[in-house]
Formats: sequence, structure tokens, C-alpha cells
Amino acid sequence: MRQFIVLGHEAPTDPDFSLDALPSEAGRLDVLCRCVTAALLLSHGIRTGVRVHLVLQDEVTIRFDGETVRNLNPDERSTAALVRTALEAKDEAIGHQPATPAPGVSLRRMGFEETLGSAAEGSTVVQLHAEGDPITDLDPPSDPLFVLSDHRNFTDAEAALLDGYANHRVSLSPERLHGDQAITVAHNYLDTAGYDHY
Amino acid sequence: MRQFIVLGHEAPTDPDFSLDALPSEAGRLDVLCRCVTAALLLSHGIRTGVRVHLVLQDEVTIRFDGETVRNLNPDERSTAALVRTALEAKDEAIGHQPATPAPGVSLRRMGFEETLGSAAEGSTVVQLHAEGDPITDLDPPSDPLFVLSDHRNFTDAEAALLDGYANHRVSLSPERLHGDQAITVAHNYLDTAGYDHY
Repeated sequence: MRQFIVLGHEAPTDPDFSLDALPSEAGRLDVLCRCVTAALLLSHGIRTGVRVHLVLQDEVTIRFDGETVRNLNPDERSTAALVRTALEAKDEAIGHQPATPAPGVSLRRMGFEETLGSAAEGSTVVQLHAEGDPITDLDPPSDPLFVLSDHRNFTDAEAALLDGYANHRVSLSPERLHGDQAITVAHNYLDTAGYDHY
Repeated sequence: MRQFIVLGHEAPTDPDFSLDALPSEAGRLDVLCRCVTAALLLSHGIRTGVRVHLVLQDEVTIRFDGETVRNLNPDERSTAALVRTALEAKDEAIGHQPATPAPGVSLRRMGFEETLGSAAEGSTVVQLHAEGDPITDLDPPSDPLFVLSDHRNFTDAEAALLDGYANHRVSLSPERLHGDQAITVAHNYLDTAGYDHY
């Protein structure tokens, strides 16, 4: 399985935002929506062996499972509507019990540390870093877990936590990519390296 | 310069569409908007040496020039608003005279054949095709021009026209990618192959 954790530092944790103002009122939720679709969608298909974790303000994590997700479309607005539906069910998430508002979409009251610890089990944790080695120097890892931030950098605490888990530190490009672009490039690296794709 | 032509088979040629319904009422304009931003935007930066041509229903072409474009944001809605602004100025495009409704955004009354013929001058035309050779087998071309279709396949006439211009026929991935994903992968190939990037 391929996994992606994306940190949303300003993303909403309540559903009271407008779908008409994702970059402003909804704390750059547009960035996170593009990451979800870049990770899970192909042209006319879903990557069933992919899981995406959106960590919202270190408070809740919304998970999208490619194996079971339905009604995921490539546009930002409909993906944001799925996020809003998940947040509307937040009260159903109690302790470690997730809310499961839609097929393949679940919400947990977990921040970055707990989400990373859980997703990292059995995974190869790949830290994306401008000064890392080119990813093409790396043999395709099994069950890779990529961790990305939104439009803001990792905080020092997040970076330190990630350092503790990272098996590899790699660079995808000499350019500074958006999160969704980074996900697309990471997938392409795995797809073309002959790694079993899903 | 890197150029991308993207064909929008159902995209609007008039500005009377809602920004709230891009995938439906606006004929999958969301697809084209993602292609524009994938081609032109980096994280906190613009690719100044890139030009994107959106061909709408073989009737008008909206061009985005990275060198001069302003106010281009990564979300679909604001990019669609730029397209709408361009279409509102359509009456100013007369004959070969473009309308220039915003910095770096111009509209011409040109279909695919004329747009391709013009953009191909001095360019290396790269046809993206599932059965093409892997792009990594190709030495990075100078001044590449990539031609893509939206969510629909090329028509037979479009494919035949493109065949006549194509210098190379390459595949980007064993997977079927969305247009914006294909653009991101093509950029990454050029970026990491040491091709002068802009």
C-alpha cells in the first residue's frame, strides 16, 4: 500500500465553511483537496491500494481509503464537500472510535503524532525534503508512506517528529512543488520503477 | 520555452456559466483549470518560460503566458474566473487580433489546427500516447510542445492532425493519467533531466 499524510495547518475542523471560498475562508482546504485527488485518482479510475490521511490542525484526521471510497471526483469542490460531510459527523468519533460518514471516508480524533505512529507501522517512511537525495537514487520502497505539509512549512516540532520516523529523506525535484504535484511525481516514480501499482 | 495545448471538447465559449458548477454546467472546465495551474505554478512561484493554450470547442483559444501572467492562483475556481473574464472580452478578438483581458491572458478566435500550427513553429511537438515509447528514453527536447486532451479522447480528426506535426510519440506512465497529472510528470521529466527550466 502507498500512503500519504498531508498536514493542514489552517484547515477547518468544523463544517461551517463555504464551498465557494476554499482558499480563504476554509484555510486553504483547496490544497488538501488537490492532494486527495492526486493521490487517489487516475483518469477514469481509482488507485485502490492508496490511503490518504488529512491531519487538520493537529486535532482531527480524515482518512480516504482507495479500496472502498466512492463518489470521489477530481474537482476540488466535490472533494471539499466530502471533507465537510466528514466534519459534520465529528461528534460520532469518540476516543479511538472513528466516524464513518461515507464509504472509504473516516474521521478520527487524532493529531499528527498519533496518525504518523499508526500509519508508519509496517511502512517505509519517506520524508520529502529539498536537500534530500534524488528519489531516483532510491530503490522503490515497499509500502511507502510519504509525509507532506500544505502551503506552510512543517513546524519545528513536526519536522523533529518526522525525523524520528523517516527511513529515507529524498528530493523529488529541483523545483519547489505543490503538495499535489509532489504526490503525482512520487506516484510516477513508483509506477515507472515497476513497483506493483494498485 | 515549454508549451502545452489542451483541448476542451465541451468547455464553454461564452461566459454565462457558474463558478459553482465547473464539472457539470461548465463542460468540465475544472479539468482545463487544473491543467493551467499544473503547467504554470510551482509552490510560491510561476514557471515564467511556459505557455498554455486552452482550445475551447475548436472555436476559441485562451492563452496563458507564464512570463506575464498575474493573479493566477492554484485553486480551480479563481482560474475559472480568469477564463470567464477572457470569454467576456471575446468580442474584442477580431480576425487575428487577440483580446487581452488580463496580463498574460489572451483570447484568439482560433481552433485546434491554427493553434497547433502556430505553436509548433520552432517547437519539438511531443504527442502523449499510451503506446508511445517511455519518455525517459527520449533526450530532453528543446522547446517542447505537449498536446493533451481533456476528459475525452482526441477525435480521429484531431489525432490525424497531431500525427502530422508530432516529432515524438511518448508515454509518460503505465497508468492512465489525468491531464494535469500528465503535465506535472512531463515537467518533472524535463526538470530532473537537467533541461534548462524557467
